[in-house]
Formats: sequence, structure tokens, C-alpha cells
Amino acid sequence: MPVTTLHDTAVRGFASDNYSGVHPEILAAIAAANDGHQIAYGEDAYTARLQEVFAHHFGAGAQAFPVFNGTGANVTGLQSMLPRWGAVIAASTAHINVDEGGAPERVAGIKILNVPTDDGKLTPELVDREAWGWGDEHRAQPLVVSITQSTELGTLYTPDEIRALADHAHERGMRLHLDGARLSNAAAALDLPLRAFTTDVGVDVLSFGGTKIGALGGEAVVVLDPAASDGLLFLRKLNMQLASKMRFISAQLIALLEPTSDPAGELYLRSARHANAMAQRLRAGVEAGLADGSIAGVAFTQPTQSNGVFATLPDGVAERLRAAFRFYDWDASRNEVRWMCSFDTTEADVDAFVAELARLT
Amino acid sequence: MPVTTLHDTAVRGFASDNYSGVHPEILAAIAAANDGHQIAYGEDAYTARLQEVFAHHFGAGAQAFPVFNGTGANVTGLQSMLPRWGAVIAASTAHINVDEGGAPERVAGIKILNVPTDDGKLTPELVDREAWGWGDEHRAQPLVVSITQSTELGTLYTPDEIRALADHAHERGMRLHLDGARLSNAAAALDLPLRAFTTDVGVDVLSFGGTKIGALGGEAVVVLDPAASDGLLFLRKLNMQLASKMRFISAQLIALLEPTSDPAGELYLRSARHANAMAQRLRAGVEAGLADGSIAGVAFTQPTQSNGVFATLPDGVAERLRAAFRFYDWDASRNEVRWMCSFDTTEADVDAFVAELARLT
Amino acid sequence: MPVTTLHDTAVRGFASDNYSGVHPEILAAIAAANDGHQIAYGEDAYTARLQEVFAHHFGAGAQAFPVFNGTGANVTGLQSMLPRWGAVIAASTAHINVDEGGAPERVAGIKILNVPTDDGKLTPELVDREAWGWGDEHRAQPLVVSITQSTELGTLYTPDEIRALADHAHERGMRLHLDGARLSNAAAALDLPLRAFTTDVGVDVLSFGGTKIGALGGEAVVVLDPAASDGLLFLRKLNMQLASKMRFISAQLIALLEPTSDPAGELYLRSARHANAMAQRLRAGVEAGLADGSIAGVAFTQPTQSNGVFATLPDGVAERLRAAFRFYDWDASRNEVRWMCSFDTTEADVDAFVAELARLT
Amino acid sequence: MPVTTLHDTAVRGFASDNYSGVHPEILAAIAAANDGHQIAYGEDAYTARLQEVFAHHFGAGAQAFPVFNGTGANVTGLQSMLPRWGAVIAASTAHINVDEGGAPERVAGIKILNVPTDDGKLTPELVDREAWGWGDEHRAQPLVVSITQSTELGTLYTPDEIRALADHAHERGMRLHLDGARLSNAAAALDLPLRAFTTDVGVDVLSFGGTKIGALGGEAVVVLDPAASDGLLFLRKLNMQLASKMRFISAQLIALLEPTSDPAGELYLRSARHANAMAQRLRAGVEAGLADGSIAGVAFTQPTQSNGVFATLPDGVAERLRAAFRFYDWDASRNEVRWMCSFDTTEADVDAFVAELARLT
Repeated sequence: MPVTTLHDTAVRGFASDNYSGVHPEILAAIAAANDGHQIAYGEDAYTARLQEVFAHHFGAGAQAFPVFNGTGANVTGLQSMLPRWGAVIAASTAHINVDEGGAPERVAGIKILNVPTDDGKLTPELVDREAWGWGDEHRAQPLVVSITQSTELGTLYTPDEIRALADHAHERGMRLHLDGARLSNAAAALDLPLRAFTTDVGVDVLSFGGTKIGALGGEAVVVLDPAASDGLLFLRKLNMQLASKMRFISAQLIALLEPTSDPAGELYLRSARHANAMAQRLRAGVEAGLADGSIAGVAFTQPTQSNGVFATLPDGVAERLRAAFRFYDWDASRNEVRWMCSFDTTEADVDAFVAELARLT
Repeated sequence: MPVTTLHDTAVRGFASDNYSGVHPEILAAIAAANDGHQIAYGEDAYTARLQEVFAHHFGAGAQAFPVFNGTGANVTGLQSMLPRWGAVIAASTAHINVDEGGAPERVAGIKILNVPTDDGKLTPELVDREAWGWGDEHRAQPLVVSITQSTELGTLYTPDEIRALADHAHERGMRLHLDGARLSNAAAALDLPLRAFTTDVGVDVLSFGGTKIGALGGEAVVVLDPAASDGLLFLRKLNMQLASKMRFISAQLIALLEPTSDPAGELYLRSARHANAMAQRLRAGVEAGLADGSIAGVAFTQPTQSNGVFATLPDGVAERLRAAFRFYDWDASRNEVRWMCSFDTTEADVDAFVAELARLT
Repeated sequence: MPVTTLHDTAVRGFASDNYSGVHPEILAAIAAANDGHQIAYGEDAYTARLQEVFAHHFGAGAQAFPVFNGTGANVTGLQSMLPRWGAVIAASTAHINVDEGGAPERVAGIKILNVPTDDGKLTPELVDREAWGWGDEHRAQPLVVSITQSTELGTLYTPDEIRALADHAHERGMRLHLDGARLSNAAAALDLPLRAFTTDVGVDVLSFGGTKIGALGGEAVVVLDPAASDGLLFLRKLNMQLASKMRFISAQLIALLEPTSDPAGELYLRSARHANAMAQRLRAGVEAGLADGSIAGVAFTQPTQSNGVFATLPDGVAERLRAAFRFYDWDASRNEVRWMCSFDTTEADVDAFVAELARLT
Repeated sequence: MPVTTLHDTAVRGFASDNYSGVHPEILAAIAAANDGHQIAYGEDAYTARLQEVFAHHFGAGAQAFPVFNGTGANVTGLQSMLPRWGAVIAASTAHINVDEGGAPERVAGIKILNVPTDDGKLTPELVDREAWGWGDEHRAQPLVVSITQSTELGTLYTPDEIRALADHAHERGMRLHLDGARLSNAAAALDLPLRAFTTDVGVDVLSFGGTKIGALGGEAVVVLDPAASDGLLFLRKLNMQLASKMRFISAQLIALLEPTSDPAGELYLRSARHANAMAQRLRAGVEAGLADGSIAGVAFTQPTQSNGVFATLPDGVAERLRAAFRFYDWDASRNEVRWMCSFDTTEADVDAFVAELARLT
């Protein structure tokens, strides 16, 4: 008996881009990779093709290691960049610092030297608050700087800002890691090829996120400078991130990144542009409401540069608004909330949300 | 552009049950769970239903924690059963001892006290070789016995044998863990309900394997005695085994285990019976060949009790046989090989394989 | 051939209380415990006596586990208080956060949730910045608050302040750990029995420091509430902190803490009072110099409540002052230095130091 | 009040060489290093001298890192030789496998691939049972072979045997580690300089044991080939093995190893020769008793090549013998016991022991 649909498929919200399902083209890619036998653990035709696809987007030297999830990608990638005594400098709001349950510390033994920021973005000056003490065995050695693009606050680094961080890190013997759980959204927002703000500006290793942009589940550790990473083959297995039927993770990532004659047709970009546009529509709708008085008491706390909108609401509004649409509190102490748009967010979803917000304020 | 099929889907072999793809009913289950939004990280309708399905098969108290892969299930489950100073007694051939890249040691900090066996099966007497030294801080404390069902050598424990191990362990303050990467094959071979050789005979925690029996990728840590396990919610996240779009892992496992009016119609059982039958057909074919002289120099090294066949071959035969069919060496020093059958192995595959073996010997 | 003295024994400085040697009474205690055989690993007469001595000072339920050093005591004690998914809230300046080379993270798998403070002291309000998220597996679970007494900045908690922190922690299901590397100095400064600001005000587990108050090398994890700690016997061994000839560590700690008819005669107190008095003499000397104009440009950055003095100096003075007396920079970016006094600091040392400072400013 | 002696200093036994106290010359060395200030954490005159002393005994390139205890030395040394995915091949009886509470696994993340032996000694053939699978991420990578000299069974490797193991390991890309908790006993028994059976025959890194040969507490990780070890400075701190008052550990090791005009006068050698001679006397006494019939039913299970004697006793004898002299069961299932001699064992101790054994059998 086939599994039946157990949920109301009409319901969507603004809680997280991982509340959405699988993009139909990705499901089709999984089906296309099915049937027959393929060697397990990565020696399959899809993982081989995936290397070419990543090389197309990130440069000839790029090496991709498919893994299960974002925490797995970040922890495994960082661990491959660091000796046992290494530390990572990151923004306080970084996913590795606040949302990975201590996995970087416990599984990889990495100390995170975190720095408060206004907008989720590090700068060379902020890095320098923790970039010191090399050679002193009493201090976990800061050997990697990790940034997130787009950030956990929906903001973006420009290529020049990343270049400045990479140069700053490299001059001090450190490497630059990038958590790209939403790298596609950043590419769409910057309107730049993926390599233009990664490989070309000095990023050494990154996590490429597939799940939040429509995959069933699949990410990759992508090594851009092989000298910056060691032992990923072994660490991926050790960290329990090695899929036996890897062809299906690779097929998902290929579906997202497979080059087309017009790059605008590539799935990662189509999906990210749509998600970002929905966030802009949401913000614009609220701003229009604020301008015409139909919405009151809402203030934005971050620029809306990718697919997330951060705002503060009048007391009690969040709770009532959630009766119709799921979303998360960001900083409950000041009524700050986060609204995320996804590849499957529709204009109607956004408009209904804005209308409900207007009704409640 | 949708991903195209990159491999020859007609090719199948006998290398591993994880060389096969996804069972069509499981793909359909993934599709049925798609569309719309579901809460991430396990608060979805499918994971809720999954609890009922596991309770149906393993008893009302069973709790299932979906994870990505078998190593993740074993390491996370064992870790939840042990304090930081704990050790596990296992057969030398156990997957946790030889095929997990040291993850139990490195990620979970567990020492494995391994005992050589003839057939991959522990006995109370074999357990006692390492079951000593409690209270002595110089010795990692043996607090869990781990068995595999069906074993890495294709053999089976009877329910009585498992009961004896459970009683033996419990009397000494130890718990019983079961690596069920191929639990479905065991159920089919024993022709017993899943609980009859797990919950009902004293197993405390087990890994339920979906991937080798036709899932895209999905396993579960299943707690049968809640007093035997602590902190799985946190450990699953810490060990980077927490899927954001968990509905799709749960849907796969539901597809395998969803009860039907005639239990013989349940997918896990249909698939396992088929795989086991193909292994029996393979063995019978070779035995017939040995009897009639069409095959020479092949000897079986283990009974064929589930879906794997272990045999020794004349010099040079393995290499030539592999030109047509993939399979693994098991102990190359004595020309021992392993032939695994899968849910998608066909009678024609088996017959062609036996014919080729006859041609080469 | 006996080892000859290789250094100039007349040289002393203000760098750290662990630059000093062994108090003669502690050397005598080691000699008194020598000769003949004693059971290794803690089943000796001295370790037995030590339990009585700790019970005398900390209450009948106190259990002491001698270890090698302060990092060992802190990491092992904290680990015994936490499940694998636990986190510790501590001041940013805490030794566990900045001076243990990442051992809490790497060896014990503990995430440190650190909070900036002005004076090295946590308050319930500061604790609350990180005391949230229980039950959420994405967040390392804050289950212990750790304070240092006297602090790394030479400041002191009052018993009431510790009581408030303990109550605050306990009400939220957290435990209170105290790093007492300089607990003797705190007792002397507060002029209170050890238990008055530990056991009696809710501290659950502490590190008792011997090395900085005149031991050759010896600390103890002291469990004040047995319900707050699990498995120390095993963790001490696992963390490589189990001395085979433990009698000699225990004898040192007994020498420090052995009760006398007049408590003022106990070595820990005599030594700590002396070290604290030398710090007060140093501060008073500099303040007098500032008042009479013989010293200029020196400002104190922390109150001098135990045996450390923190001050800022005019540009270039630190370097020249160090030609005569060793000491550490604390925050080089603002010319802040730390001057520590020890059990063997003499009035003449202090006076010479103040005179040299006067000469240079 | 000085600590008084709490135990009967006349009692000695045959339980372990770490039941003995501190050699008077080592206590004198500690006292000679006392007074005045020395830089903490290893930048002191004694640790500097120690480097010269180790270079004298092990060759110009030797680097010594003093640590607290043997488990600390082994785990830290091995960890410095291995990537995170490394494994160690060792005899099943190796201290790292059976007596370190799982610290190699938990603290260093090292899998131990252990091989049963008759006499505690590996051979190239025994190494080959586990020396395979390089490049396969499913297998913890065997990159170090670890041997113990003298072994846990009191046996010795000849220099040629060690050379064969080193060559065998190096040819396969592995390194050779040596646990030298009783290296002094081995040197005395072989009547060879320390380097003749370590540096000169290919050992890469070793643990030099001080505690069992009369130190209060002190060992060293000694790197003989700097290319075989990385990051010891950081790992020693991370592993909580960094002594603040390191001068006192270094002074102990200097006392043991300080060169004298006649090498026979060096303390490590004098003490080890004495301990070995006492073991020989014990064995000879028992053999004489067996020959003249005054002792019956005792059989030796290992050759007596250093300071330990292994024997089986008639039922019940061990228990009665222990009323007078402490010693350990080795394999209680066959009445096998271990008798260890120490630097402070006297001829009278041995003779009384043999007499008592005669009385009881």
C-alpha cells in the first residue's frame, strides 16, 4: 500500500526555507538516477558528474564532498581545515555558534571565538578582536575565519568585503571558511556567478546548501583551495556523513547546479531569485502599508538582502499572526521576528500575509 | 533542464544491497509527502505517524529517532546507552568494529571490546571474555553488548539465542544493542514479527535499517526500553544526524513498515523475502553445479541464512567473474568472497551469475 | 650525582604565583610520606586522611579527587556535572574560556557560553544572557554556571553574591561550579572559613588549587553535592589525571589544609594572607607614590581584593620595569599589566618594585 | 604543623613498582630546584637542561616534553603521530589497550587495532594482521605501531626485533611508537645505552617513564624523529598534561638521567639494575625451592627478563601469600600472578617472600 499524503499540502508559512518540500525537478532527478546498480559511497556516475558541475561554477580546482546536512557540512569542512588545537573566529550569530547544538565543539573539538556584530557580518576589525595568540599553547589557535553568506540575518557580504576578509585572514596564516547554507540566495541577490564571491575572492572551503533551496536533503563541502583542507575523505566517514547511495544526493545537487545555455535557467538561480523576490514583495507590502497607514507599529531590523525579513512587531501581534502563518521569534525580548521565503512561496501567500498583518495592527 | 540518467540502468551485481536504488513504492511515498510546508526537524505528520508504525511492530513503548545512515544510527544509539567511560562488547566482525572508520571511538568516545567468532555471532561465553572489570577505572567499563541481526556474515540469531544474550547482559548490569541494518532480512528469514526477536527477547535499543532494503537513505535508532537510553534528542543533533526535512526520511520508513491487512504485504517483508530467496537461489544454483560437476572448486564458508552468500573460489576466478558482476572480496588471503542479493536482484541475474561461474571453473 | 641548583634562587618577580617554588612545609610533607610501599592510585593512607581534611573544611559530605593541575581539575569537574550535550555559562575572562587551550571543548566536549563582565564576576542578570533554550536540541544545553573565586582579575565574590548565583542556577535546573585555583586567597581576603563561601552558599563542585599557594603540583576536584556530579572516578582516569603515587599529591594538600588548634596557623591561610598582604602593600606603595608625586601615570583598573594588582602604565614603562621584575601584560592594547604576589613574595621585593616603578615614571 | 608519616614505612610488597616511593636522590633534586622564581610552563633552567640530558641519551635531535603520567605520555605522544582518522596497532596486552580506561579512544579519538600475542611482543607478522586498508575511509587508518619495552609481561625486545618492526612499519608508511614506562629496566636488562634500542633502531616517538623507576611523578614524551610528530606543544596543554611548575618534573628526570663519568653511576641504571636483580633473585629462589622440593606447584609463565615475574600458583596459595605481601592476580582464571620488584626492593624482602611461599606450598 503506497504511503498516503498525511498533511494539508495547501498550507505554507514563513517559518523557514526548510519547511518547504522538494522542488519537482529535484524529485525528477532522483527518479532519473534510480534503477540498476551504482557503486556505493561515491564511486557512481552522478557523483562523478557532480565534480564537473562544481568545477563549472567554482573553478577547475574545486572538489565537492556531498554530505547529509548543513551542520555536517560545516563541522566536517572546518575540521578538515584545522589541527586538533585550532579555533574558528565567527560572528556570534553564526549558525555554527548558536544552532548546531555544540557539534563543532563536541564532534570536531573546535573552539569558536565569537564576536558580536550588528548585522551578522564580520569585518577585518572584528576579526582582530580574536585574531591573536598564535604559538601560545594556552590559547586555542585561531586558524580559520568563518563567515555566512547570505548571513543568518538575511544580509549579504559584497565580493570586496569577502576579499578583504580573505586577505586579512591569509596574511595572518588563517584560512577563510564560508557557510553557504543559502549561497544560492546570495548569488541571486548579488546577481553574480557563484565563483565571483567565493573562489575569486579568496574563500578556501565552503558549505554549499541544497536543502534550503529545494533539495530533499543534500549539501556539499566544497574545497576551493586544496591546500586549505586535509583528510575530507576520512572525516566525512568519521563524522557519519558518508551516504551509501550517494548517487541520490549528487543527483539533487546536479539538478540545482547543472549548467544551461542561459545561466538564468539554472535551477538554483531560478529558485533563489524567486525566494528573494518574495521577501522583497513582503517587505515592500509592509512598507506600503506603513506608508498608507494600513499597517502600524512594525519596524525592520535588518536590510532585506536575500530571502529573510527581520522586523519588530507591536506587543501581541506575533502571537495572533501565527494563528494563520507559522514563523519564528528571533529576539522575543524585543518582539523581533523572522519571516523566511522559500522557492515555493507564492505571491498569494505573501499578499495574504501582509493583509493579515494589516488586519492585526 | 531535468537531470538525465547517467548510468546503464540494466546493470546489476552482487556487491552490496546498497548498490541498488530506491524501491518504487518508497519513491512514491516521498512524492506523496511533498508539497506544502511541514515543520522541520521532526515535528511533522510523517514522523508522528512513524511513531505509531514502529509501535505497531516493536511494541507500545518503542520510540523511533530517524537518522541518515547506519553508522549514524549505531554510534548515536550506542552513545545514548553509555556514560563517557563506557565500552561495548561486540564480535570482531561487527560493522561498528571494522566498517565505521573509527567513528564509535572518535565521535562517541566508545571503546569496543571485540571478540573473535566463527560465524559473526556472540554467545554468553564469548561475551564473558570481555565482561569483567566493573568498578575498575583503569578499564573502559563494559556496559553494552552489541550484536548484528542478520550478521555481517549472513548468519542469524534465533530468538532464544538473543534472549540468552539479553539475560546474560542484564544480569551483569549491561544492556543489549542490536545493529539491524538488515533487520528486515532477519524477519523474513526467521518468518517472525519484528518484535519477536527484538522487544520480546530483551533487546534494549536497535538500529533499524532502511537503506539496504530499498530506501533512498534512512535509518532509525529505535529505543525499546526507555530506561536504557538517554538524551537521544540531543545526541542526534550533536552527531549531525538530524534531518531538517525529516518528513522525507519518515515517509520512507513508513513505506517500508506501514501495516497492511495481510502482513505479508508489508514492503519490508516483501523486499526481504525476495532478497533472501535470491540468495537461496544463488546458493542452490552453485550447489547444483557442484553436484553435477558443472562448477568446481567452490566452497561455502557460512550458512546462507539471509541475503548474503560467502564462498571461497579457485585462484583467479574471482577476478574473471568480476568482469561481468561486481562483488567484494571478504578475505582475499583465502579467496573468500561475498555475494549479496538485493530487493531488485532478479532470477535472471542469479541464473546468469551461476552460469558465468560455471563457465569459469 | 645529585642534581645541582641551576638557577639564581634569589630572583623573584610578580609574573605569577606559579613562578614560585614549593613551600618548605609542603616539601617536608612529601618527605614524610616517602619510604615503604603504599597502594597506588589513591588507596593510600594520605588520600584517606585527605578526605577527612576536606570534610573538616567543606562539610561532611565533601569528596575530594586529587588531580595534577588546574585545567585538569576544571575540565574533569565540569565534565562530571554535564551530559554530553551540556554547556557552561562563564565570564569571558574565565580561565576555562581563555587559558585552557580549548581543553574544555576538545577533551570534555563542552561548549562555553561566555558573557563579558567588567570585573570578572557573573551576576544572575549576566547569567540570564545565556540561560535559555533548554529542551531545544539545536542549542548546547546550559546546565552549569562556572565562577572563579578569587577571579582572574583579582576580585572577590561575597558569600551573598555566590548564594544569589547558586539560587539562580538551581532554580533553573543548573548547577554551580567554582574554579578555586586561588580559593585560599579568597578565604584569607574574606576572612571566612572555606565552607562559608562554598558549601554553605550553594556551590556544587569546585576545583581546589594547591599549586598557586605553594604546592609542587596538586589540585583537587571537590564535590560538595554528590547529586551534582557523576563518574569522577572514571573521568579522572580517562582525562589522564590519575596519579599512581597519589600519596604525594594528597600529602601536599594535607600540608596546606591540615587543621590546627588555631585555624590561623593552617598553611593555606598563612600563605594566602601573606600573598594578599603583599599585594596590598604593593598597591598602597604605588598609591602613596601617586599621592606624593614620586609615581606618575599609573592607574588601577580593578580593586585589589586578593593577591593580584591590575594597573595601566605610561607608554614604555612596562618594558623597562620588566628589566628588573617579570610580570605579564594583561591588555597590551591599553598598557594594562598584572602584578601577582605569592606566598614567597617579600616586603623587600615589593618595596624594591615600587621604588623601581617610581624611578621609571 | 608539618604532616606526619601516616603509614608503616617498613612495609613493602611485590604489587607494582609504583607502590614504591621517591628515590632519595630524586627528592634531593626537587629540593635543589626549589626557592626563587622560575618561569612556569617549561621556560625554566631545569627543562632547558633536560633537553640536553635527553639529547645525550637519545641523540642530538631528541625533543622531550615532560608530562604528568604514563597514560598522559602515551596518549599525547600517539595523538601527535596521527591524524584524526588514525589507528594504532598494538599487542592485546598493551597498557594503552587494557589499562588506560579508554583514554586513547575517548581523549585522542584513536582506534586501537589489537593483536593477541604469547609474550606481549609484536612481530612483523603479527603487525600484518591489522596493517591493511590504507586509503579506505571505512577503516580507521593504521598509521602507527606501538610496542612496550620492557613489555607488560616482563619480556624484552632485542634491538634487532625493534629494528625489524621499525623497518616493517616505515616501509608501509607507518610510524613506530614505544611505551617506555619501564625503559630503564629494559636498558639495564639489555645492558645497552638507551639509544641503542630506540633511536638507533628506528623508534620514532617514545614515552619515557620516570615514576616506576623512583620519581615522585614524571614522564616525558620523547620525539626521536621530529617528522613523526606534530603539535606536541599544543596537545600537551590540550590533554591537561602541562605542569605550571615544570621545573620539578624536569628536575626529577634530570636526576634519573644526568650523565656521570661512569655511566654505571647514572641513577636510572643503578635503580633498574637493582630492580631487575631482585626479580632474578626472586625467580632463582623459587626455582631453587622447586629443585630442592621446598616449593611445589609453582610454574613460571614468562621469562623473567626485567623486573617482573609471572607465575601460576596452586589453588589458594595466592590468597594466603597476600596476607604477608601484596601482589596482583594477572589471570585469575588460571591462578596466574605477577610479582614486581622495585628500586627499593631489598634482598631481605625477596628472601622473606620466597620463604613464605615455601611455607605455603
